[in-house]
Amino acid sequence: MKLAIAQLDYHVGNFEKNSSKIIEAIQKAKENKADLIIFSELCICGYPARDFLEFNDFIALCEKSVMQIAGYCVGIAAIVGAPAINTAPKGKALFNSAYFLKDGRIDKIIHKTLLPNYDIFDEYRYFEPNRKFECIELNGKKIALTICEDLWNIDDDPLYLENPMDHLIKENPDFAVNIAASPFSFTHDARRTKVLQLNASTYKIPFFYVNHTGAQTELIFDGCSTIVLPDENMYKMASFKEEIQYFDLDEVKQGKGFGQYVPIDKYELIYNALIEGIKSYFNKLGFKKAVLGLSGGIDSAVVLALAVKALGIENVLAVLMPSPYSSDGSKTDSLDMIKKLGVDHQVIPIIPAMDAYAGLLAPSFTGLKPDITEENIQARIRGAILMALSNKLNLIVLNTSNKSEFAVGYSTMYGDSIGAFSVLGDVYKTEVYKLAAYINKVQENAIPDSIIKKAPSAELRPDQKDADSLPPYEKLDPILFQYIENQKGPMEMIEMGFDEDLVYRICKMVNQTEYKRFQAPPVLRVSDKAFGLGRRLPIVAKYLG
Amino acid sequence: MKLAIAQLDYHVGNFEKNSSKIIEAIQKAKENKADLIIFSELCICGYPARDFLEFNDFIALCEKSVMQIAGYCVGIAAIVGAPAINTAPKGKALFNSAYFLKDGRIDKIIHKTLLPNYDIFDEYRYFEPNRKFECIELNGKKIALTICEDLWNIDDDPLYLENPMDHLIKENPDFAVNIAASPFSFTHDARRTKVLQLNASTYKIPFFYVNHTGAQTELIFDGCSTIVLPDENMYKMASFKEEIQYFDLDEVKQGKGFGQYVPIDKYELIYNALIEGIKSYFNKLGFKKAVLGLSGGIDSAVVLALAVKALGIENVLAVLMPSPYSSDGSKTDSLDMIKKLGVDHQVIPIIPAMDAYAGLLAPSFTGLKPDITEENIQARIRGAILMALSNKLNLIVLNTSNKSEFAVGYSTMYGDSIGAFSVLGDVYKTEVYKLAAYINKVQENAIPDSIIKKAPSAELRPDQKDADSLPPYEKLDPILFQYIENQKGPMEMIEMGFDEDLVYRICKMVNQTEYKRFQAPPVLRVSDKAFGLGRRLPIVAKYLG
Repeated sequence: MKLAIAQLDYHVGNFEKNSSKIIEAIQKAKENKADLIIFSELCICGYPARDFLEFNDFIALCEKSVMQIAGYCVGIAAIVGAPAINTAPKGKALFNSAYFLKDGRIDKIIHKTLLPNYDIFDEYRYFEPNRKFECIELNGKKIALTICEDLWNIDDDPLYLENPMDHLIKENPDFAVNIAASPFSFTHDARRTKVLQLNASTYKIPFFYVNHTGAQTELIFDGCSTIVLPDENMYKMASFKEEIQYFDLDEVKQGKGFGQYVPIDKYELIYNALIEGIKSYFNKLGFKKAVLGLSGGIDSAVVLALAVKALGIENVLAVLMPSPYSSDGSKTDSLDMIKKLGVDHQVIPIIPAMDAYAGLLAPSFTGLKPDITEENIQARIRGAILMALSNKLNLIVLNTSNKSEFAVGYSTMYGDSIGAFSVLGDVYKTEVYKLAAYINKVQENAIPDSIIKKAPSAELRPDQKDADSLPPYEKLDPILFQYIENQKGPMEMIEMGFDEDLVYRICKMVNQTEYKRFQAPPVLRVSDKAFGLGRRLPIVAKYLG
Repeated sequence: MKLAIAQLDYHVGNFEKNSSKIIEAIQKAKENKADLIIFSELCICGYPARDFLEFNDFIALCEKSVMQIAGYCVGIAAIVGAPAINTAPKGKALFNSAYFLKDGRIDKIIHKTLLPNYDIFDEYRYFEPNRKFECIELNGKKIALTICEDLWNIDDDPLYLENPMDHLIKENPDFAVNIAASPFSFTHDARRTKVLQLNASTYKIPFFYVNHTGAQTELIFDGCSTIVLPDENMYKMASFKEEIQYFDLDEVKQGKGFGQYVPIDKYELIYNALIEGIKSYFNKLGFKKAVLGLSGGIDSAVVLALAVKALGIENVLAVLMPSPYSSDGSKTDSLDMIKKLGVDHQVIPIIPAMDAYAGLLAPSFTGLKPDITEENIQARIRGAILMALSNKLNLIVLNTSNKSEFAVGYSTMYGDSIGAFSVLGDVYKTEVYKLAAYINKVQENAIPDSIIKKAPSAELRPDQKDADSLPPYEKLDPILFQYIENQKGPMEMIEMGFDEDLVYRICKMVNQTEYKRFQAPPVLRVSDKAFGLGRRLPIVAKYLG
């Protein structure tokens, strides 16, 4: 039996594009004499379709696409992911399903049993869990077909009471197929591989795991479709790339071309993921050009390098917006980088707007000293300038804040926190430096040394340094990591050995700035806990705040 | 048996305040010879605590509070809501539980069975559903104790396979208690009352329903704790108000003081809810004063009237920020209203800042015509001025956009769409007029007639009217209502008789502006489907867009 694995990038709600991509792949696989082609979870509508799933019209379009695609499955079978209507009188309206298509029609529909409902996942919002289990059959082979999370109740923290493979294995399947939509984080491939190995070694059959690639707003899909054998050896398809590969089942069982898991460097993963995230946002929304403010600091320099790589040098505009507090170094360093890259730039000094606001507000501020208000005004002028360029020239504004800043609210709402999406909002400041080092390896020292070496500063008042308002990043970031990624509370962190005052100070800063993050742009997710969809906290609360 | 119903306003994560409020109520009830006092769902930690529930430290503080409160339950029993740890090896970490406290200790813990996971609710994110059923007992009486949603699988759209009361009724309970955290919408009390009536008439015992009051960021709780008898007569406690009331079980069973359901006018409900929402935000975050931009239009006039009512005349600052495109009428109407209310105001003309931006951007915009860019700059200048006043004078900016504008993206990001929270973001434009009429009945014609009668305009270019860019609101709002509240897709709406072109035009506007709403402030929720937590759609998608 010959299997085709179609690792593709879908577009949420773009039925026409998704269907024609799927049909094209089916036809190609048929030419290549494949018996079965396997697509990923909810590929028909794209993932995550979120509340579009609550619209009957949307579900009708899903069904129409599946029927159309089924028509092409003659002489080849296919597995595609799409929602299915729950016809029972009780329960949620839909199932998250795998359609087994053959002989020009729907042969069987298998529903997802384990519905992730944590972090970024909301599947219980839409779907009823499956409660009956059966294999599908093709050319005399039994296939244990499951959907993504269905394989995940096998590790040391069982979130669910069920385990679908325990049921399916009773039918003695020849191999297992898992169609997935498994968003990237820099730890995810290692964990996912372990889960697949555990399944293959436990159930003693080969597992074919088929993932999405491409990005959907903040979620990035890395592909890495994987075949794992009972001996835990594996074959991994490309990361961050569409491809269709063919496998002969007998050869797979012999482990030809299979090997051990080889982890990829964290910063290589983050780099590739961010590039994919930027690309997908622009391509899928039909934009070409980006604009960003270049401050002379490390964050905007890294975003510029990434944008140039993702979009092409001709599609990025860097804007310098110096104020009287901008250091000479910031300006010359930025111009150095621009010159080296050959990227288009503009210099727009903000003093006239600062003066105008000072004049407008003078009557209201009589007798009051300068404070953070005037600093915020500078950041908001820069935000307004970038948005004006965006509006007039049809550019997408890239946010340049990092995760440490978002976490403690070290940013100006409607100022430096603006943008269509945040490139580095899930990368801590200390990691931004490491990412910069990686970029300088693969992009010919794009980021000048002087930018990497200077002390971080917002340059919103004379001689300002981040360290005036924040703990040093080497102390801040590990506590943020425990609080955000590991969800450790202050008592736990103190027990771990962190400084009590610092822990409470930092947790308080995070909790008190929830209101800022609520209005922040979507953040490209590269960690296990990014700001945005996957982290939901109340604004009006008084816990450590 | 004497029961006390404690309908109180809790503060998320404020364990000290919540506990002392609960203990005080227990002591008062004991003085009043109550046998049992009943508090609402998750009152210990506040509702919704959201991802704070994922922190062990937070759960430890919940447990500590429950233990402390149990110590006061001597000579009186109490029911309080708090999370409980799931000690089983499989499943989610917590239950959403009702603690039955008596004799100074925890007598029994009852877990919630039906976990809402739709709209604003994410309970499957945190909680494992209950699977075993038993009544609690006090002084020889059996009590069927359930939690909120547990009673809701009784109507014509059964979302769940279970129905807890079907199990509990087998023990022949004397009455039922339901502790709830049931957020307000202007349709909710009618639906909730029907559900309670259905339960009481089906199971033929009295139902005591105990709700929260007060607001938590965007969610408003209206109280309206209710007792319903098998004959469907009822007694309803106050709306939007903390109170403790006492009931003799025998008298309740005789229906003394009970009657039929009397619905309240929609705009009275919305008015009271918005006042409560504004008050709670300020009180719970420790702020006193608000600032808003007064444009001369109906939306900001309504927000001003509501703010004055909620916060007091001395705590509101209205700011007029005229441009060359502001009509004389807008200015004089605003000043009329300010004078009549006696509210503090400032006039800050924005021309100098407009000129400054025009100058800054002239080199970048050479040869390009004025367009929406220049309009957005005006809105962003106004946003920056309000934020500067907020920063310098410690004021909270109230957003003044309405739901129709948010829906079609008729607002400027970082401009008029700013604010700590949105007062009218869940009220369509056509409803804003009706709310204004209600305000003028109860607040001595606070809103001048001329403001109510003028044609809506953003006044960002000469003679601009909303109708230049948008369908008339009387046509727009009914389609938005079907699309947003009723989740009807275009094919369904066309079948309902709406104009095809208009339907597609409007749905497209909504879908294409998802990116704007992602960064909008939290919106006080008064309808069944508000923007924000309860409506989750992808930005990068191509469905009707």
